[in-house]
Amino acid sequence: MNISSSKRSLVDIAVDNLGKQLEQGRWPVGSRIPTEPELADELGISRNTVREAVRVLLYAGLLEVRQGDGTYVRAIVNPGEAMRALSRASLREHLEVRCLLEESAARLAAERAGAGDIARIAATLDGLQRRDGETPESYAERDLAFHVAIADASGNQALAGLYHFFSRAVRQSVQDSIRDEALPDPDFAAHAAIFDAIRQGRPDEAGRAAAAITRPLLATLDRLLDTKQ
Amino acid sequence: MNISSSKRSLVDIAVDNLGKQLEQGRWPVGSRIPTEPELADELGISRNTVREAVRVLLYAGLLEVRQGDGTYVRAIVNPGEAMRALSRASLREHLEVRCLLEESAARLAAERAGAGDIARIAATLDGLQRRDGETPESYAERDLAFHVAIADASGNQALAGLYHFFSRAVRQSVQDSIRDEALPDPDFAAHAAIFDAIRQGRPDEAGRAAAAITRPLLATLDRLLDTKQ
Repeated sequence: MNISSSKRSLVDIAVDNLGKQLEQGRWPVGSRIPTEPELADELGISRNTVREAVRVLLYAGLLEVRQGDGTYVRAIVNPGEAMRALSRASLREHLEVRCLLEESAARLAAERAGAGDIARIAATLDGLQRRDGETPESYAERDLAFHVAIADASGNQALAGLYHFFSRAVRQSVQDSIRDEALPDPDFAAHAAIFDAIRQGRPDEAGRAAAAITRPLLATLDRLLDTKQ
Repeated sequence: MNISSSKRSLVDIAVDNLGKQLEQGRWPVGSRIPTEPELADELGISRNTVREAVRVLLYAGLLEVRQGDGTYVRAIVNPGEAMRALSRASLREHLEVRCLLEESAARLAAERAGAGDIARIAATLDGLQRRDGETPESYAERDLAFHVAIADASGNQALAGLYHFFSRAVRQSVQDSIRDEALPDPDFAAHAAIFDAIRQGRPDEAGRAAAAITRPLLATLDRLLDTKQ
């Protein structure tokens, strides 16, 4: 074992140790964790190793630094673990979750969208008019903008954050696995129906209109996957 | 600036650089990234700095090591970012997303649950009988087991992963913010209704039964939050 791999494993052990203590609730969300020297003493490792471990937990979103104050707990569960579960899931499962989020967002947007939200959704809907000679990617980008505007209008930042994350994470795997041309092309009228229901404040109708786009997509994907096998 | 802080910032820059290249699709999901020496050459930094940066991306779930083979791309979007969005969201928003996931999971479980799933849900439902002298925490733990069993029966690993993550991430903030006693205590019959609908393969009924538990919870939370302000 050379020095660098031995050092790597010490940091990994420190990350695991701190991660477990976070998950077990030693430091609640919003509380300050001990300083680097204190943690180094406690764990019997160098300050430098503590610093590396803290960096890992910062990037993963579990800790945050407040300048001149200290390091605070932002979350006690590693989203990287959720990511590992997600990465084992199939394309179909990803797409289904994305669809569920879209339907929920449309429903909530119909209950809560304000004038600003409506204007933004209207603008992104307008962008969904087909253009000559465009690539599937550029259409997909504008389609995403429409659905993101609806997610943002749901009045739920957590749902919107999840949708942002999910739609970006899923998009590439969809593009990699299935040629865009093979999927049904949701038409402008179908998107306009979602917008109308949101504008008129009809949650059930908005949810159904969203489902009218997502369900055929899933059904087509099932057929394509069957054919491929 | 001392040596360690200068080193820290080099690693951070390397993490940002690699994170951006991942997000921009230079290496698709499932592909192998260049070796440490290659990346060190390319970025003009030490191998040690590359190694630290890769460690950060491994823990965040963006990369994975396949022993004896190399480092592969598992995801191109940092779930830590989604986490930061989630951490800005309110308790009510968290709880609402958890409720939406519960309703979707119940619906899908009614479509797809196999005999093993039904048996597991039945066992966790049985655990929801009230016990004398128990703490709210121990009841919450068994309640979670019931809902996790349903999420797992949804036949969608991605939804189940999201629910696992969300229910654990949310639980503590719920316990910290609101005394359990103040929230309505969903009774055994309400949980049994979800189970019955799943067992009988009735998705709409399962979704409604799940909503019958989650909606009053949200409504009570709204009242409590109003009172607190």
